[in-house]
Amino acid sequence: MKNLDHTVISGWETIRFEGESSTVEEEMIAVEYPLTIVLNGEEFATMVCTPTDLEELLVGFLASEGIIRYFTDINMLNIDQERGFAYIEINRPVKDLTKAHSKRFIGSCCGKSRQFYFQNDVKTAKTVMNQLSIDANQCLNLMAQLQMRSQFFKQTGGVHNAALCTVDDILTIRTDIGRHNALDKIYGYILKNKIPLANKIITFSGRISSEVLLKISKMGIGIIISKSAPTNLALRLANDLGITVVGFVRGDKMNVYTHQQRIISKKTALYES
Amino acid sequence: MKNLDHTVISGWETIRFEGESSTVEEEMIAVEYPLTIVLNGEEFATMVCTPTDLEELLVGFLASEGIIRYFTDINMLNIDQERGFAYIEINRPVKDLTKAHSKRFIGSCCGKSRQFYFQNDVKTAKTVMNQLSIDANQCLNLMAQLQMRSQFFKQTGGVHNAALCTVDDILTIRTDIGRHNALDKIYGYILKNKIPLANKIITFSGRISSEVLLKISKMGIGIIISKSAPTNLALRLANDLGITVVGFVRGDKMNVYTHQQRIISKKTALYES
Repeated sequence: MKNLDHTVISGWETIRFEGESSTVEEEMIAVEYPLTIVLNGEEFATMVCTPTDLEELLVGFLASEGIIRYFTDINMLNIDQERGFAYIEINRPVKDLTKAHSKRFIGSCCGKSRQFYFQNDVKTAKTVMNQLSIDANQCLNLMAQLQMRSQFFKQTGGVHNAALCTVDDILTIRTDIGRHNALDKIYGYILKNKIPLANKIITFSGRISSEVLLKISKMGIGIIISKSAPTNLALRLANDLGITVVGFVRGDKMNVYTHQQRIISKKTALYES
Repeated sequence: MKNLDHTVISGWETIRFEGESSTVEEEMIAVEYPLTIVLNGEEFATMVCTPTDLEELLVGFLASEGIIRYFTDINMLNIDQERGFAYIEINRPVKDLTKAHSKRFIGSCCGKSRQFYFQNDVKTAKTVMNQLSIDANQCLNLMAQLQMRSQFFKQTGGVHNAALCTVDDILTIRTDIGRHNALDKIYGYILKNKIPLANKIITFSGRISSEVLLKISKMGIGIIISKSAPTNLALRLANDLGITVVGFVRGDKMNVYTHQQRIISKKTALYES
């Protein structure tokens, strides 16, 4: 098989039933790899992932969690890929951070002032101010490009893809069995390469949950385009944080849920306000 | 709309594009709800979920995490649904448990002796000994039943379903935006009602990751049937733990990946050993 990357997929002897017949075939299966982060000498978290772009994954994950802000906050990053351990030293103590970062946040007014539920998100989520706009047809086109280039998904049915895009083109794609990891790999790529984001879009294969939406906001991206559906909490956050959510992009159909002013179409009259 | 349950889905004003036309319509969106567990007086975890069957979800989650073994380990369970908090008292101190439960496990021989990666799983995962068997056509039939009864999934595209089944019928279905939560709700149902499991099967809409497989093992279920793909780590665990994994069940097709002796077909000769 062409382009078979054994860090992403591996063969598995499988009995395939179809109607009355059954055959034994080697199926391509998504690789799932546990990676434990040791942060400033203490075990911090274990994630399971597709073992590609691990440095970007780690950088993006730590930034998503509010542990670092810049790539330069990391003094040392060492990956023992065979044993599945990453040793990371950052330029400040981790202790106070971890204490607060996963605590439930209760805002004033019975927690209904904003839709956050972690204290960490209150600090790190950003309202996105840029007003990049994109034509509806370009949204469809970006999703078509993502689908076309997502070879592993077709082979295994088990991985997600996230792409950093301009309105016209995909700049880079990251793949992972975890939706969040695919986005964290993109986030790590952005931080490592100091990519300017005002004119960028994320195209994504997975569902837009509140966690996905918060990652987009932390990156400072104004438009997310997904093949899948959003949740209501993600949409409320997107409303609050100024993010345009486009979902269910399939063939020539798509739904625009929030901040539709960024989507240009020939029939703009419908949603001009 | 018939059967619209506002704890599971809610309306959202959406601009729907199709070809050159666009219309404003109320779309049905999956509800995502944050629930914080306060265990013996200490904040333990915050999960996001579909806010149905919360008691079952909590019981199943605590059992999956190895915090409880029986429903009767819980002395008190109180849910403040409006604020999204669950207060739970269990019959032993939590402190030592939480310290170990998410620590990375390294077995002898460079971690390659078994595929576990959390210490907790080493204690709670069980090798499944029962040899319940099922006809290949019954697998297809159970998946068809699950699809037919999964009304919310069709409406929103955003939730997963897990069903506890006999070889012939679905006994009960649980729904959640989180794959793991749907299974935890089933696990909670099993524990609360002391369901005997030797003749039971789980039918599932989501991908079979290592975490899903470990949950199945902890429940003591021997066969999991899924519409989606497994990961390689899940399959290695399934091999170790004696669990039959059937995946990609679509129409009259399906793949059997492990412990195929439980699957009966007219052409059994192929895999008799």
